[in-house]
Amino acid sequence: MITDLEFMQLAWQQARLGANQTWTNPQVGAVLVQAGQVIAQGYHHRFGQAHAEVDTLAQLANDQQAVGATMYVTLEPCSHYGKTPPCADRLVQAGLARVVIGQHDPNPLVAGKGIAILEKAGIAVTLLDDTGGINRAYNFFYRHQRPYVTLKYAASIDGKLNANAPKRTRLSGHAAFLASQARRAEQQAILVGEHTLVIDDPSLTVRTQALAHPPVRIALVRDADALPAELRLWQDASASVWLLSNAASTRAWPAHVQVFAAAEWTPQAVCALMAKHGLQSLQVEGGSRIQAEFLVAGLVEQLLVDVAPITLGGDALPVAKGPAAAAVAWQLAAVERLADDVLLTYRRDE
Amino acid sequence: MITDLEFMQLAWQQARLGANQTWTNPQVGAVLVQAGQVIAQGYHHRFGQAHAEVDTLAQLANDQQAVGATMYVTLEPCSHYGKTPPCADRLVQAGLARVVIGQHDPNPLVAGKGIAILEKAGIAVTLLDDTGGINRAYNFFYRHQRPYVTLKYAASIDGKLNANAPKRTRLSGHAAFLASQARRAEQQAILVGEHTLVIDDPSLTVRTQALAHPPVRIALVRDADALPAELRLWQDASASVWLLSNAASTRAWPAHVQVFAAAEWTPQAVCALMAKHGLQSLQVEGGSRIQAEFLVAGLVEQLLVDVAPITLGGDALPVAKGPAAAAVAWQLAAVERLADDVLLTYRRDE
Repeated sequence: MITDLEFMQLAWQQARLGANQTWTNPQVGAVLVQAGQVIAQGYHHRFGQAHAEVDTLAQLANDQQAVGATMYVTLEPCSHYGKTPPCADRLVQAGLARVVIGQHDPNPLVAGKGIAILEKAGIAVTLLDDTGGINRAYNFFYRHQRPYVTLKYAASIDGKLNANAPKRTRLSGHAAFLASQARRAEQQAILVGEHTLVIDDPSLTVRTQALAHPPVRIALVRDADALPAELRLWQDASASVWLLSNAASTRAWPAHVQVFAAAEWTPQAVCALMAKHGLQSLQVEGGSRIQAEFLVAGLVEQLLVDVAPITLGGDALPVAKGPAAAAVAWQLAAVERLADDVLLTYRRDE
Repeated sequence: MITDLEFMQLAWQQARLGANQTWTNPQVGAVLVQAGQVIAQGYHHRFGQAHAEVDTLAQLANDQQAVGATMYVTLEPCSHYGKTPPCADRLVQAGLARVVIGQHDPNPLVAGKGIAILEKAGIAVTLLDDTGGINRAYNFFYRHQRPYVTLKYAASIDGKLNANAPKRTRLSGHAAFLASQARRAEQQAILVGEHTLVIDDPSLTVRTQALAHPPVRIALVRDADALPAELRLWQDASASVWLLSNAASTRAWPAHVQVFAAAEWTPQAVCALMAKHGLQSLQVEGGSRIQAEFLVAGLVEQLLVDVAPITLGGDALPVAKGPAAAAVAWQLAAVERLADDVLLTYRRDE
């Protein structure tokens, strides 16, 4: 006999098909089982499109096939009118006998209300209490009311970001570059400091895949108006730019550039601004001082480190330089070798 | 039919059985093949004992069995009287028809003379010109007349050796500690600087296996006489200690401690002293400044880095701090995960 967990694994597989396309929505997948047989499966394809439950029922010739069936869905069905009507109501209407749910929805708009609708209608509900390893940022955001912050950097073997030179040192190989593009595609925002912005002139875009909602590009600067006129950020309008500036701006900016002024943009203030705008994940990509500050603030949940096969020596710029921090222990989540680069993923204890 | 390379692989397997026990002698293995069958195998067990060829022939009931046979030996047979008579003569005496040799012996005492003896006696000689990946330090030492230097350190994820504190920060987990003990056992000498010596008070011994010739422990200090009276180095007499001091010593030292005085102990001077004493390999184990100096001097051939699952923050002691160095590219030789530590091995292009 196929277990609930095995059917749920199929639903998680479905959910993952929506990776990088659901933006601030969770990835969700579902399978519909009638008399031990999967008769339909579906997932949330893209932000703004049908939810997984609706996508799954739409595979049937008619609702009659769903009567008495069990749906396995990775997340609690929604109970609110958003871009689509509530899925919980739709499941009741379809006449399901049982719904097996991967995880409770931490979004306060749902948070148990979906399950209540199902149970009230006499549907048997089983909660597995298992995320299947997806929606890390979504879950974190609703549990902690702040974005899931990833620190991402490439460093030399001897722990340096850059040679002691006015130019950027190229560290990562091509395979590591492709991997870091793929990692960027998972983020809702990317942040760099002023030094990195001016020295590297990064585009901070995802160039290896098409995204309906590419990450918002955020730069932390002293005076936005003092920035060079020809940065790559101004040229590529495919993703928004936020300039977090310590001074109000009078300059005429392209439509995709937005300036937020505040006396001081601490890591806490950056996270609060993002939370206000509903952005659930942030990748900090340098430089040395901002990385040190996010670490000290205790706001980093994940580290993505690319150890590049190069030494830069005693006077090069270290990975973290700045305020003192307490030692923090991390869990090593993954080790990946890409040519002569080594990609390390660390997470905080969960 | 079994190829020469396949028989040689058996000989390399034999050679590796002598790992860590042959001290400044090379690891050597041999197999003896008569009519396509291995009839004997042997290796150099330990510094001062029989060479591999002699160890192999000693497995036979009598020399008669070796007449017309082929010996596969990983290193050119020796031609000189050392602790044992020349192996090349012994092979001629045994009546071998053919000798297949892994690699030429770079030791100038042999260096082709062993092959010449065999060929002069009418034995067919094949040279594979393949080290089988063993005797890296031995080969390097005779080719470059200086020790093969390994830089070994444990660093935090953010590239730090130690928190900004007077006490040592424990970084590596237990599995990584065991691995680093195993790596030490491969070395003929281990060096630390004065700061590491006094702060860490390391014993610098191999505590996980018995070694007939444990690595010489070397400390680079300003004034040997000013060192604390209770360091662990003075207590464990199982391995010699060299103190490279900038001042002559008048103190009475234990028998296992030897003081070498010079105005300045540069990495070059350290390597020259070792070469004079025939030490072929050196592992530098900190601290930050000495590591930076060895890197700048271009005298490092191998890096062993243990990335520990901890961040120490912006004011901690970086892996390399000191003189400017040119960027150096390395080849990633190995990636090993040990619990939450990651061990990285890099080598220079060979």
